[in-house]
Amino acid sequence: MKDFTYYNPTDIRFGDYIDAQLAKVVAHFGQKVLLVYGGHSIKKNGLYQRVIDLLKGFDIVELAGIEPNPKIDSVRAGVKLAQDRDVVLAVGGGSVIDAAKVIATAAHYDGDAWDLVVDRDLAQKQTMLPLVDIVTLAATGSEMNVNAVISDPSQNAKVGARCPNPPAVSFLDPRLTFTVPASQTAAGSMDIFSHLCEQYFDRSDSNDVSKGMIEGLMQTVTRWAPVAINKPDSLDARANLMWAATNACSGLVGAGTESRWSCHAMEHQLSAVYDVTHGVGLGILTPRWMQYVLDHDESTAKLFARFGHRVWDLPVLGNVHNRAQEAIDATWSWIFGLGFGMTLPEIGIKDEAHFAEMAKTAAAGGLDHAYLPLDAQAVEDIYRASITPGIH
Amino acid sequence: MKDFTYYNPTDIRFGDYIDAQLAKVVAHFGQKVLLVYGGHSIKKNGLYQRVIDLLKGFDIVELAGIEPNPKIDSVRAGVKLAQDRDVVLAVGGGSVIDAAKVIATAAHYDGDAWDLVVDRDLAQKQTMLPLVDIVTLAATGSEMNVNAVISDPSQNAKVGARCPNPPAVSFLDPRLTFTVPASQTAAGSMDIFSHLCEQYFDRSDSNDVSKGMIEGLMQTVTRWAPVAINKPDSLDARANLMWAATNACSGLVGAGTESRWSCHAMEHQLSAVYDVTHGVGLGILTPRWMQYVLDHDESTAKLFARFGHRVWDLPVLGNVHNRAQEAIDATWSWIFGLGFGMTLPEIGIKDEAHFAEMAKTAAAGGLDHAYLPLDAQAVEDIYRASITPGIH
Repeated sequence: MKDFTYYNPTDIRFGDYIDAQLAKVVAHFGQKVLLVYGGHSIKKNGLYQRVIDLLKGFDIVELAGIEPNPKIDSVRAGVKLAQDRDVVLAVGGGSVIDAAKVIATAAHYDGDAWDLVVDRDLAQKQTMLPLVDIVTLAATGSEMNVNAVISDPSQNAKVGARCPNPPAVSFLDPRLTFTVPASQTAAGSMDIFSHLCEQYFDRSDSNDVSKGMIEGLMQTVTRWAPVAINKPDSLDARANLMWAATNACSGLVGAGTESRWSCHAMEHQLSAVYDVTHGVGLGILTPRWMQYVLDHDESTAKLFARFGHRVWDLPVLGNVHNRAQEAIDATWSWIFGLGFGMTLPEIGIKDEAHFAEMAKTAAAGGLDHAYLPLDAQAVEDIYRASITPGIH
Repeated sequence: MKDFTYYNPTDIRFGDYIDAQLAKVVAHFGQKVLLVYGGHSIKKNGLYQRVIDLLKGFDIVELAGIEPNPKIDSVRAGVKLAQDRDVVLAVGGGSVIDAAKVIATAAHYDGDAWDLVVDRDLAQKQTMLPLVDIVTLAATGSEMNVNAVISDPSQNAKVGARCPNPPAVSFLDPRLTFTVPASQTAAGSMDIFSHLCEQYFDRSDSNDVSKGMIEGLMQTVTRWAPVAINKPDSLDARANLMWAATNACSGLVGAGTESRWSCHAMEHQLSAVYDVTHGVGLGILTPRWMQYVLDHDESTAKLFARFGHRVWDLPVLGNVHNRAQEAIDATWSWIFGLGFGMTLPEIGIKDEAHFAEMAKTAAAGGLDHAYLPLDAQAVEDIYRASITPGIH
């Protein structure tokens, strides 16, 4: 186990707390609110009107239209609106919360918000507006961490920023996710699972606190994602996915590990260039990455075999390599069952023209220190392996 | 999953951070320090002198001699010393941190500190001094929660208090536990395991986030406790036990569950009347409690069987009752292996004179809403079952 520090003061209200507590929580920070949200879904399902009704009497300015893979131009628009605000209220999924985080961080910054996305030290020096959020999608876990991923399409860039504070208060009501379509439930579940994989596969195999808690969360996601997809108003399924998403990304289960988030680094390039759904990109890349790792470093078989036993309930029978392969196959099967395309061509990526450049950028993000160190060639190989069906 | 709120702002510094950061952290709160510690162990192992050296120039007042099962008179003595202090620094195990918590809470209270132990609402209204701690024993998890257990021998009382805040900053360096004797390592590990059991056995069987993370922590404790007992300077073992202890009691893994801590309620009476080591009392009671539960409610077999599979790696073979029994037997074997006495007479409790009264008090603490509701007679039966060897 590596030394670590952990401090996470987000105040979580999980369940049916919005009606009773939202106005009080927001009022604690002030009356001038910047309300940030995405497209039409919260207008369609009534959440927008519910929030407006609950905040009657507050001075509310709105920023609508935050897109998936949120763009820096949306953030810039938000910063202009945020300057005289007391508090930012984000209502949406990870994209909305991510954008709101950077808006809150840049509200009193004189330069361009993109500076704070790319320069983590500079971001830490800002006085961030307090952020309250209402989560509408179980996926990124943005509701309990300082991270935000922002894209700049003008330079095909997708960058992970670090804000000075996590959200002050996050409302998580799983009932709000009953209306999430199956495809987004699937992509969100894959995102959760990937966050867990990224932290699980590290070299400190003595960190059983981390590995044990992650295995428990992996079992939770793999059990409940299919239920939520098939029965969207299952409160048990939605609650388990939502709380697993938060815990997967709060920093706690990764404490003491050394992880480089290889699949995320590779997927961010896919999203930046092709604007694909993050979770779908991860679903395609993750089993190929696993296969590449096992094929290139037999010493990883032991951890894959443990993963197979603890997460997929595979028996401890046969040699460790075969058990590792079965674990990867089981991972493939579960992702396949989520129902989205499992090759790049199926999600519209039919050329390889950008692979070399994408691989270079992804590898440069620290993948030389990943679980299996990856150079640009290795990343390119994994992209290419994602074109053809299957992993064998 | 039940609705819940979760907010835990303790700043954790896990690893080798004390030398570089202690003075800075304490100075953040002020120069006037109340240093609280226990017996001679931190003087013998050099930690006391190290802390004094690091805090050269601070105005330090000391309260030594906090005992296991900390007594209200020690708290009262601390409150007298705390009134002009800026910060309380606790150096020790759970007893020291518990006492320091209540001292910090009562520092500016006009009445008797015991009022704040028994009246949780009154305690919440106090302005608590900031508390910094250095943990020297992996057990109670007091370093990341608001709880404190205080005894008043004059009335055979042992009561769980709730303070307004958890520790502000907790330093956890597993190297500090290398000198913990095997018997205390065993008792501490049993305490961790019991905290996990108390939260695991609840009726909301759909809360897989909680159950999954707890299973991971249980595996961690059961794997590493014997290692730490046999090889006290195993950093892997000490680190896993220390971080598992914190996570077992931070409130996170119990979020969304409804638990009544049956074994703790029963053990607190044992400790209050006979002053036994908390972890040892739990080790004796826990398997008897499990057996009583299974014997009296067959519907609990399913969860015991899951516990057996996930924690003890028992195969999913045979009927659910037998698998449940095997899980309880496996629990017994592990506790037995920790090396302390497994019957009440072995730890010096040779009469039953107080059982009826103890059982009445324990049951009155909400055990009518426990996983298996327990009345005074049931508790008395469990005490009596703890006199004879074995559980069958």
